[in-house]
Amino acid sequence: MDSTLAAYSIKREGYDIIGVHFSYGQRTQQKELRSFHAICDDLHVLQRHTLQLDFFKDIGASALTDRNITVPTGGIESGVPVTYVPFRNGIFLSIAAAIAEKEGAEVLGIGVVEEDSSGYPDCTETFIDSMTQSINAGTKEDTILRIATPLIHLKKEAIVLKALQYHVPLHLTWSCYQNERLACGVCDSCRLRLKGFALADTSDPIPYETVT
Amino acid sequence: MDSTLAAYSIKREGYDIIGVHFSYGQRTQQKELRSFHAICDDLHVLQRHTLQLDFFKDIGASALTDRNITVPTGGIESGVPVTYVPFRNGIFLSIAAAIAEKEGAEVLGIGVVEEDSSGYPDCTETFIDSMTQSINAGTKEDTILRIATPLIHLKKEAIVLKALQYHVPLHLTWSCYQNERLACGVCDSCRLRLKGFALADTSDPIPYETVT
Repeated sequence: MDSTLAAYSIKREGYDIIGVHFSYGQRTQQKELRSFHAICDDLHVLQRHTLQLDFFKDIGASALTDRNITVPTGGIESGVPVTYVPFRNGIFLSIAAAIAEKEGAEVLGIGVVEEDSSGYPDCTETFIDSMTQSINAGTKEDTILRIATPLIHLKKEAIVLKALQYHVPLHLTWSCYQNERLACGVCDSCRLRLKGFALADTSDPIPYETVT
Repeated sequence: MDSTLAAYSIKREGYDIIGVHFSYGQRTQQKELRSFHAICDDLHVLQRHTLQLDFFKDIGASALTDRNITVPTGGIESGVPVTYVPFRNGIFLSIAAAIAEKEGAEVLGIGVVEEDSSGYPDCTETFIDSMTQSINAGTKEDTILRIATPLIHLKKEAIVLKALQYHVPLHLTWSCYQNERLACGVCDSCRLRLKGFALADTSDPIPYETVT
């Protein structure tokens, strides 16, 4: 939902979108890849990069990529959760920067949310600002990239409301950390999503196994 | 040669080494992987990560990863050469940061050389300093990483002399951009290496096809 709204927001600013999808061994990677293509179709994205990042499984250390670590379903706790994938967004942005440099793109878009989120360190404005600097320092002089984070300071209900306003196909998006057919409704990602829909006083079009 | 000296330098500071090797579709990846293991054996590195980064081939845009772009052999020119792989060291350091965070490592070592090199933007101290900040901002609060760049301000001859002083097994290292059996002797990487040995007034133990 967040990445999708980011893409629609950036498209509304007048940019053509190059879609980038990462399969990094996350539990729901096949569902997410299908969602990616369906959303790209809706957004008329012609150029798509679907990258297979198998090495994340070797690194492991996260409930999303290591099947021996259980995805927590008891509610959001403070601190960095076990679903944190070490420096994931740093890796994603670095790879996206390489694609952007090759394609002559101007903006990298990412749907990070700072406050109303799971508490991942790689979703903060401090990190994004520093990463912008690193990318511009480490690429060619005439490669000048901005990282657009249209959701970074939004609450989850504002994300839902803006997605509705921008006609984002929410039924095509997927947030659940563990299931591909029916969203579990109880992992942190489902809980945050459902909280957004509840506070926005509207219903989520995707199917759930359990709604708490 | 540069990565190897970096590893030996950091080992001498008293650190245990975790070896990380990237096969990213570079022309000499099999030779480099064999060299990696032989060097790790010599350095008694027990923990080794060998990562397959196939997505670099999809990105292409470099003579190292795209077989349709010829590796230049006419001598080093000013500017960023066609062997530049977009944001390669940014991607490498991001992945290494994830491994370091998982393993609780303190230092990321990289053999970048700023002045006496091919002119890649991702080999500069400005980039490394910024990347250090990004990695620390985008990882957990108790993950504190330093990037060690023991070669960054060395000239090529100083690299050769220090490697000899530290008993680096130079015969196991490989620098050529295009060949795996006999180093070509004429690509930028061979030229820089050979210049270092010549100025250090010693001979390179690896076999060459051509020595200019």
